[in-house]
Amino acid sequence: MVQPADVDFSLRATIVSMIGYILDIAGIDADSKGFGIKKLTRENRSWVVSRMALDFYRFPYKYETIHITTWVNDYGKLLTTRNFTMVDENYNSIFAAVTQWAMIDLFTRRPLDLRHVDEYSQHLCKEKSPIDNPHKIAAIIPQKTAIHKVTYSDIDFNRHVNSLRYITLMVDMLPIEFLSKPNSMHVEINFLHESRYGDILTIGYEQSNSKLQFEIKNVRNIAICRASIEWKTDTEWKNLG
Amino acid sequence: MVQPADVDFSLRATIVSMIGYILDIAGIDADSKGFGIKKLTRENRSWVVSRMALDFYRFPYKYETIHITTWVNDYGKLLTTRNFTMVDENYNSIFAAVTQWAMIDLFTRRPLDLRHVDEYSQHLCKEKSPIDNPHKIAAIIPQKTAIHKVTYSDIDFNRHVNSLRYITLMVDMLPIEFLSKPNSMHVEINFLHESRYGDILTIGYEQSNSKLQFEIKNVRNIAICRASIEWKTDTEWKNLG
Repeated sequence: MVQPADVDFSLRATIVSMIGYILDIAGIDADSKGFGIKKLTRENRSWVVSRMALDFYRFPYKYETIHITTWVNDYGKLLTTRNFTMVDENYNSIFAAVTQWAMIDLFTRRPLDLRHVDEYSQHLCKEKSPIDNPHKIAAIIPQKTAIHKVTYSDIDFNRHVNSLRYITLMVDMLPIEFLSKPNSMHVEINFLHESRYGDILTIGYEQSNSKLQFEIKNVRNIAICRASIEWKTDTEWKNLG
Repeated sequence: MVQPADVDFSLRATIVSMIGYILDIAGIDADSKGFGIKKLTRENRSWVVSRMALDFYRFPYKYETIHITTWVNDYGKLLTTRNFTMVDENYNSIFAAVTQWAMIDLFTRRPLDLRHVDEYSQHLCKEKSPIDNPHKIAAIIPQKTAIHKVTYSDIDFNRHVNSLRYITLMVDMLPIEFLSKPNSMHVEINFLHESRYGDILTIGYEQSNSKLQFEIKNVRNIAICRASIEWKTDTEWKNLG
């Protein structure tokens, strides 16, 4: 059920809350099948999300009950594909996503070969992905930038900035009128590098036609995270300048 | 169960997560008894938290199961008292809190007289509060300040800054070494005024002996929120300067 803390002033779940829901469900599903971080952290391994493609058809309201389905249908050496669909109480589709994850060694921070994870293959599901795989997002020339110093509450149990915080930093750059639009949207995110406590991040965005592209870089000019938001239907599009 | 997203780098629940738990439980309990915000928002009323006194005996670890008990044992014209205790799986006490709430009219933003809320009196519980009531916190002369502009993700469904965000802003000012201390602590919070999207807030803190005091003010020099954190036991106390 969509909780009061999950919605914004329009009383609908935020982009960040919706991504939070699927990350929670991913964790519960992986733990229940013996390859979740509950087991992995004991073995100094962990999952890190690499890319996401997200279709929002509408944003559910406070106290709506939503049903989320998740399944893993593919994996290679480096990445595994986890899918999500979300329906409302009338079983109308409100969201679909394809996410790609790597498993890393917590000491070396290097990816592990997923083909050697025994528990994994037996839980693979044949059902195809609900939307296209996420794409590589190009660098941008930002029209607007903001600076953020990574604080205590930005970092999570693995001492790196929490994935959701990058999305929050990007969304917070937009004029608020922009975020109150009820339209459906397509979002893609590439998580490229980790950042740590005290890092100084520059968040920038560029608007071209009906698409916003974001990039977060550190002081060494390394791209940490890129994302794009595309409003999909009957949008009265405003130029944000 | 303490979720991975609720813990910090020490793998223990954060102050903000712990307060989040009790706010969630308060909402569930009030809704189940017919005086929660689910019903109140339809009638253009809402609860706002005014003061909190919180005793943290220890911070639970990731994946620990905790049990939270809540009860309302007092109310007057303006404020009602809601209590919380938290125990771990071995029924050892890990947390206790006393919180005071006002009910406001969402149009006028003015408090309502709780003595006229019929549903209320029948759910009053005789059990006494687990710790002392929260106190009024005095103004401070800050030794250190930071500036924060209220963003989209700071505000919640009622268009005001979420209570938990004030705590996050305060805690994020502290040197990180400070937050990794395992000691128990006593926290008090006074929520004094609301702030809105775009407001410029100044967060300051002052250290005196084993106590930290915080104050958040807006540009008109009005105090929005004050808090104090006191480390209670065997603390190797550092001066934060």
